[in-house]
Amino acid sequence: MEERKASGSLTIMTEIVLPNDTNVFGNLMGGRLMYWMDIAAALAAQKHCNAPVVTASVDNISFENPIKLGNAVHIEAKVTRAFNTSMEIHLKVWGEDLTQQFKYKSNEAYYTFVALDPHRKPKVVPQLFPETEEEKKLFDGALRRRQLRLILGGKLKPKDATELKALFVKD
Amino acid sequence: MEERKASGSLTIMTEIVLPNDTNVFGNLMGGRLMYWMDIAAALAAQKHCNAPVVTASVDNISFENPIKLGNAVHIEAKVTRAFNTSMEIHLKVWGEDLTQQFKYKSNEAYYTFVALDPHRKPKVVPQLFPETEEEKKLFDGALRRRQLRLILGGKLKPKDATELKALFVKD
Amino acid sequence: MEERKASGSLTIMTEIVLPNDTNVFGNLMGGRLMYWMDIAAALAAQKHCNAPVVTASVDNISFENPIKLGNAVHIEAKVTRAFNTSMEIHLKVWGEDLTQQFKYKSNEAYYTFVALDPHRKPKVVPQLFPETEEEKKLFDGALRRRQLRLILGGKLKPKDATELKALFVKD
Amino acid sequence: MEERKASGSLTIMTEIVLPNDTNVFGNLMGGRLMYWMDIAAALAAQKHCNAPVVTASVDNISFENPIKLGNAVHIEAKVTRAFNTSMEIHLKVWGEDLTQQFKYKSNEAYYTFVALDPHRKPKVVPQLFPETEEEKKLFDGALRRRQLRLILGGKLKPKDATELKALFVKD
Amino acid sequence: MEERKASGSLTIMTEIVLPNDTNVFGNLMGGRLMYWMDIAAALAAQKHCNAPVVTASVDNISFENPIKLGNAVHIEAKVTRAFNTSMEIHLKVWGEDLTQQFKYKSNEAYYTFVALDPHRKPKVVPQLFPETEEEKKLFDGALRRRQLRLILGGKLKPKDATELKALFVKD
Amino acid sequence: MEERKASGSLTIMTEIVLPNDTNVFGNLMGGRLMYWMDIAAALAAQKHCNAPVVTASVDNISFENPIKLGNAVHIEAKVTRAFNTSMEIHLKVWGEDLTQQFKYKSNEAYYTFVALDPHRKPKVVPQLFPETEEEKKLFDGALRRRQLRLILGGKLKPKDATELKALFVKD
Repeated sequence: MEERKASGSLTIMTEIVLPNDTNVFGNLMGGRLMYWMDIAAALAAQKHCNAPVVTASVDNISFENPIKLGNAVHIEAKVTRAFNTSMEIHLKVWGEDLTQQFKYKSNEAYYTFVALDPHRKPKVVPQLFPETEEEKKLFDGALRRRQLRLILGGKLKPKDATELKALFVKD
Repeated sequence: MEERKASGSLTIMTEIVLPNDTNVFGNLMGGRLMYWMDIAAALAAQKHCNAPVVTASVDNISFENPIKLGNAVHIEAKVTRAFNTSMEIHLKVWGEDLTQQFKYKSNEAYYTFVALDPHRKPKVVPQLFPETEEEKKLFDGALRRRQLRLILGGKLKPKDATELKALFVKD
Repeated sequence: MEERKASGSLTIMTEIVLPNDTNVFGNLMGGRLMYWMDIAAALAAQKHCNAPVVTASVDNISFENPIKLGNAVHIEAKVTRAFNTSMEIHLKVWGEDLTQQFKYKSNEAYYTFVALDPHRKPKVVPQLFPETEEEKKLFDGALRRRQLRLILGGKLKPKDATELKALFVKD
Repeated sequence: MEERKASGSLTIMTEIVLPNDTNVFGNLMGGRLMYWMDIAAALAAQKHCNAPVVTASVDNISFENPIKLGNAVHIEAKVTRAFNTSMEIHLKVWGEDLTQQFKYKSNEAYYTFVALDPHRKPKVVPQLFPETEEEKKLFDGALRRRQLRLILGGKLKPKDATELKALFVKD
Repeated sequence: MEERKASGSLTIMTEIVLPNDTNVFGNLMGGRLMYWMDIAAALAAQKHCNAPVVTASVDNISFENPIKLGNAVHIEAKVTRAFNTSMEIHLKVWGEDLTQQFKYKSNEAYYTFVALDPHRKPKVVPQLFPETEEEKKLFDGALRRRQLRLILGGKLKPKDATELKALFVKD
Repeated sequence: MEERKASGSLTIMTEIVLPNDTNVFGNLMGGRLMYWMDIAAALAAQKHCNAPVVTASVDNISFENPIKLGNAVHIEAKVTRAFNTSMEIHLKVWGEDLTQQFKYKSNEAYYTFVALDPHRKPKVVPQLFPETEEEKKLFDGALRRRQLRLILGGKLKPKDATELKALFVKD
C-alpha cells in the first residue's frame, strides 16, 4: 500500500453563522462548531484512506474567541499521521467578520478517525508522509498525543508512556 | 455566595437518532452527539450558576460503541466542581435499543463552561459541594483534569503541574 | 406476557428553545413543542412494549404559559395504561428560566401509540400496573379518556359511553 | 369591527416527506405533522385577524393513514368561528402518492389561536360569517367543541355544558 | 399516452419565514427560497407525469422584493409544457405581511425537471395542453425559453436558434 | 475607492450530502444545492465589498451529474466583475466520491449580489481587476451576461443589447 502526502487530505470548509447556531449572546455554540469540525475531519480522513470512516476520539479543545452571528467560519482539516487503521486529523478554526475585515482564531483541535471495510471492521490505511516543516512537526507530535489519548482512555499506564513521561520528569 | 449541591445541576436529556444524524453506516455521527452533549452540559452549568454560560473547553472524548438509527440517546450531565468563574461538567452518554432492551455505553466526557454577566464578562459562580462517593471522586479529579487542560492549552508548564507529575514519576 | 410497572416507561427529555423554534414574540411555537412531545411519548411507549410504535392519537392540549427563547423545556412522559395493542402516555411539560430560577407549567397531555410487529400490523403489548397514587389515578382515568376519544373519532355513540355519561347526568 | 368571510382565511400548504421526517417504518412522524399543521393554522388565523397569534389549544387528533417517505402532504386550514379574542381553525390533512395517483386521508383537526396586541395582551378579533353549508356546520359545531375544551381544561363543569349534556342525556 | 391539462399540475405551497431562513437584515435568503421553489416545482412535475423527477435546470431568477421574517411565502407552481422526457414548470412567488394585509411580488421563475423510470433513465411524459389564455402564452413561450437554455448550456449555436434570433434581428 | 483582485474573493465550501438533502433516488436535491451555492456566493461577494449583501439574481443553472448521498460537495465561488453596487459571482460545483476517488462536475453558475449600507440602500462597491486568463475571460463575459439578465428581467430591449445581438446576427 503506497504512502500518501499529508497535503492530499487538505479539506477547506466555510460556513456562515445563522440564528439557530447561536446562544443568547448571538455567538456560535460550541457544539454546533464541533459538529462542523467532525464533518471536515471526516472528509479529510476519507480523502486519505478512500474508505468510510467513523469518529474514534476528539482531543481537548479550547475555544478562544466567540464567532458571531453572520460571521464566516473557516475550518481547515488535514491528516497529520496514519497509524494502523486510524488517522489523526489536525483542524484549525477561525472566524471572520467580513464587514470589518477582521479574522480571529477560534481553536485548534485533533480528531481521530478509524477506517472501516464493508463489513464495518477496522481497515488498514495507507501511511502518510509529511512534507512541510509544519506537517513534520505535527507528524512527530502525533505519537505523543496518541499516548496521552491511550492514558486518558485507560488503555495505557502513565509510567509506560515513554514520550509523555519525559515531559514531566526532565527540566 | 452560598455553596450548592452537585445533584442540583443534574440534567437528563433523551434524544432519538433520526436519519439526518447518521453516517453511511446508519450510526450517529460523533459531531451530532457532541452538539447534544454541549446543550446538556450548558443546561447543567446554568442550573448551577443561574447565569448564561459559554463553552470554554471540551476534554478528550473516546467514542466506544456506535449508536444506531432509531435508537435512544441518553445523556446525563452534572457539574463536578466550580472554580472561580468556570465549572467542569461530567457527562455520561449511552445508547439504548428499545426493541432489543439493550443499553450500551457510548462515552464519558468533561466539558468546561464559563459564566458571563450581562456585559459578557466572566462572573463568579457559587462553589459546589459533592455529597455522594461518585461526586466526591469527580470533585477531587477535577483539579488534575484542570492542570492537564492548562498544559494542553499552553498555559502551564508540565513541570509545574504537581498533581499530574506525580502520576508519571511515582510507581 | 408479563405485566410491567408504569415507572419502567418514564422518559425525561430536556431541550433548549433555539431561535428557529420561536414565533415573532420569541416564544416556543406550539407545533415545535408537540413535535418534541411526540418523540418523548414514543420513547416511553417503546420502553413499555419493546417494539416500534406509531402515533395513533393526541388528546386535547391547552398551552398555559409560553416558553421563552433560551429557556429549558422539560418533558416527562410515562405510560398510564396499556390496552390490547395501544398505550396511553401521559406527558407533563414545563419551562424553566435558569437565570431567574423560575419554573412554569406549559401543559399536560395524553398521546396514544400503537405497537407494530415487523409486518406493520398492530401487536399485543404487555399490560401495565400502576404503583403510586398518581399512577393509579391516571390508570383509572384512562378508560374515560378512551371513551371520549372513541366518541370524538365517531367510533362510539355518546349514549353508549357509560363512564362519560355519568359525568353529565349526575349532580 | 367588520365581519369577515370564512373563505378569506383559507390557507393551503403542501410539503414533501423527507427522510428526517420519518420513523423507522419510513412514515411521517405524528409530531412533525402537528408542527406543519400548527404553522398552517397560525397562517389562517393571522389572515382572519391581521395580528400575531399564539396557539392556545389543539383538539383531539386521530391519525388514520400513515403518510409515506417521498409522498406529498396536503394541509388545508380555515377559520370556523371567531370568539372574543380567539379563533377556532379547522384543518384537513391528506397524503398523496404522486406516482400511484393515490390520495388518502390522514386526519382532521381543530386548533385554537389567540390574537395578541403589541403588548402581548389578547386582542379582540373580527367576527366570522360562514357562507357554504360546510362552513355553517363547522360554525355551529364550534360552540360545542368549545364547551368540551373548557370542560377538559377544567374551566367548566360538565353539568353546565348545556350543548354537550344534550348529547349524553337524550336518545 | 393521454394529454393532460396544465391545471392538473397546480401546486400551492405556503411557508412562514423563520429566523434561520433570514440574513442579517431579517430577510429571507435567496437560497432558502430557491430550495422551497425546487420542492414546489418537483411536486407540480410529479403531478403531471406520475413518476419521480429530478431538477434539470433553473432559468434566470430576479429577486424583486425581500420577504421579511414572520411573513408568509406563497408559491404557485404549474407545468407550462411537456417535452419528450422533460417538463418546464412556471413558478410565481410572493410574500405577505398578514398583519399589514400587504402582498408583494418576490419573483417568477422557470424550473425544468426530467422524469425517471425505476432504472433512473429518462422516461417519456404525457403531453400537456393549455386551456386558459395565460397557460397558452406560457406554453408558446416555452419553446423560446428552451432554445435559450440550450444556447446557455452550449448545446445549440445562437445562429440556429430560430425563435430567439428573430427577437434580436427584427425591429 | 481602491480596486481589488478577483482572487481576494475566492471562497471554498465543502459539504457532505446527508439523508435529508436527498430525493427518493438518494441524490442531492437541486434546491438544497442552490441554497449552499447562495451562501458561498454571498461570502465571496462580502469578501470583495466588506458590506452585507443580498441576492439580486441567479443565472441559468443546468445540473449535469447527480451528487450522491455520502459524497462530498465542493463549491468554489469568486467575484468576476463589480458593477456600480452589484457584483457577479462565478461558482463551480463538483461532487466527489471519496471511496472511489472519483470527481464529477455538477454545474457552473452565476449569482448576482447587491451590497447594502446600514440603511439597506444599495452601496457602491470597489471595482475588481482580473489577473489570470480565466479571470479576464469571466470579467469580459460579465457584460454580456448582464445584458441578458436585463433583457430577461424586462429592463432592456433585445435590439439595444449590442453585445448579445452580435451573437445572433453574425456567423
